[in-house]
Amino acid sequence: MCETEDLDLVITATPWQWHVPVCVAAMKNGKHAATEVPAAVTIEQCWQLVETTEKYQKHCVMLENCCYDQAELMILNMKHKGLLGEILHGECGYMHDLRSRKLGSDGIALWRTEHSIKRNGNLYPTHGLGPIAQCMDVNRGDRFDYLVSMSSNARGLNEYAKEHFGSDHPMAKQKFALGDVNSSLIRTVNGKTILIQHDCNLPRPYSRKILLQGTKGIVRKYPERKIYIEGRTPLKGAKAHPKWESLDNYKAEYEHPLWKKGGEKLESAAGHGGMDYLEVYRLIEAIKKGVATDMDVYDAAAWSAIAQVSEKSVEKKSRPVEIPDFTRGMWKKKRPLPVMNF
Amino acid sequence: MCETEDLDLVITATPWQWHVPVCVAAMKNGKHAATEVPAAVTIEQCWQLVETTEKYQKHCVMLENCCYDQAELMILNMKHKGLLGEILHGECGYMHDLRSRKLGSDGIALWRTEHSIKRNGNLYPTHGLGPIAQCMDVNRGDRFDYLVSMSSNARGLNEYAKEHFGSDHPMAKQKFALGDVNSSLIRTVNGKTILIQHDCNLPRPYSRKILLQGTKGIVRKYPERKIYIEGRTPLKGAKAHPKWESLDNYKAEYEHPLWKKGGEKLESAAGHGGMDYLEVYRLIEAIKKGVATDMDVYDAAAWSAIAQVSEKSVEKKSRPVEIPDFTRGMWKKKRPLPVMNF
Repeated sequence: MCETEDLDLVITATPWQWHVPVCVAAMKNGKHAATEVPAAVTIEQCWQLVETTEKYQKHCVMLENCCYDQAELMILNMKHKGLLGEILHGECGYMHDLRSRKLGSDGIALWRTEHSIKRNGNLYPTHGLGPIAQCMDVNRGDRFDYLVSMSSNARGLNEYAKEHFGSDHPMAKQKFALGDVNSSLIRTVNGKTILIQHDCNLPRPYSRKILLQGTKGIVRKYPERKIYIEGRTPLKGAKAHPKWESLDNYKAEYEHPLWKKGGEKLESAAGHGGMDYLEVYRLIEAIKKGVATDMDVYDAAAWSAIAQVSEKSVEKKSRPVEIPDFTRGMWKKKRPLPVMNF
Repeated sequence: MCETEDLDLVITATPWQWHVPVCVAAMKNGKHAATEVPAAVTIEQCWQLVETTEKYQKHCVMLENCCYDQAELMILNMKHKGLLGEILHGECGYMHDLRSRKLGSDGIALWRTEHSIKRNGNLYPTHGLGPIAQCMDVNRGDRFDYLVSMSSNARGLNEYAKEHFGSDHPMAKQKFALGDVNSSLIRTVNGKTILIQHDCNLPRPYSRKILLQGTKGIVRKYPERKIYIEGRTPLKGAKAHPKWESLDNYKAEYEHPLWKKGGEKLESAAGHGGMDYLEVYRLIEAIKKGVATDMDVYDAAAWSAIAQVSEKSVEKKSRPVEIPDFTRGMWKKKRPLPVMNF
């Protein structure tokens, strides 16, 4: 299809391992490429994506929809306006009970389940990490340096299979490599830290965490949208202890321009409450105008590589593992982030 | 005083570095010893405490008051009754804006500030870790195996001094070793994981986190007291996604016996809302009855040692560092936890 059709852009929404082959085929044939998350499964695949993009000079974008969610863009806007001061620490993750999706209604392992059988680490890092990386100028003045990763025991999928399909079902006895809760710590070259977690095999409320902390305050999206800014958040009680206040109090001043413009129309748009609409809109606009996309191939590579880097760390009893610099030094340049370039 | 007075128990509430010398002097003179947290600053001091206790056969207790707080004891009770299923992961920490205490009203560094100047790691781990360790049967069927630790840049104390005492004040220029946000990951021998953080130099609301996750559900104390138990927490919305519910819904059934008995009288008691009363009450009762204390010297050593173990890890770029087994193998024995032995 990439060879014969007259296409501008090829989007791949296949199982993870096919993202890179499709993107590479698209670019080799003169098309721009966009992919669902994660862009790649291995570090080698990340390099392949970067090298192909550099050779053929096409756009190669990982469609990280969570970078366009209302709270995430508002927090990014806050960071750019200096509300939080100098950024020191961030937290994110993908905490989503996927047991019924991994084991289905009949316990037949689908493609996604294979990853839980064979791999142990943070297998799906980008939904939380993308927004935090943007808030930390990763690849645009800073970069991921190294990571340590730790996984708990694996119990959730076996327990689920036992309960739903019986103790003799193959999935009740299947050995899953993936620890139920993976916690990883990333340090950037400039000394910021990130906690990133993965927790998809246990009963729990959904969360991507999204916490950003600086010298002047702290903001978080999950479990509730709250913020504390020194000198601005009212102090309560006899001892005037710092307390969280609602993030909504800052909406009038810090709502991101895209959401201000989109308004209620956006909130009712299809696709995760509007963010999917925005990510595709921004990509098409960039291609039409011939300008830089909000996220580029270096973001796709750096964010996706965390999965295999975390696997290497878990395998070595949480030893620190270096995160490749896919920009080959270009991260030192403070490039503007297009989505903040209004 | 230890030599001459007719005392049953010596309690030390001195700066950290004097806890072990006072406890050792007390036990050598036939007195029971109790200490404020942390019991010790170094691993060597932890061993000294253990060896002295074993030699003189006295009680040696670290007064970790947070183990007696209402929510913490209720969560411990839930764990013991199996509400959360098999425990896989826990989170805790000490997030407390101590800038004004560390720098005072005049910027003169007090004893506590010296630790921030010289040490980088989780310097004050026990308030969060004690309750989580009890929920994980640490030293009573499981034990801490190893740890990795990562610190962010140090900015908060300099910024505070600049703002309050001017850019030329010595504390505005003082180099602080302690990163503002330290995150550490502990793995137990039996495969549970713990995230423990330390964050005392930045403006932020207070938190000890306190999150416990198992195969059947998840509970947390901060930032709000919430819980989700599969099959019990009502599912809401068209898609029936899991949502948090208030921890109060479980109070009638899971309130710890000590709090049930103490009731409102306890809540209005002096000392952090009742928990300080309970910890001293339980210690005196154990000494009077000649029975095991709720926390023993092995708990004091294991919980306190995390500080120096984390420093070693931070110093080595987050390398995993083994946590000593102060019980010398006795952890394998499933000893009852006295505070749950009702």
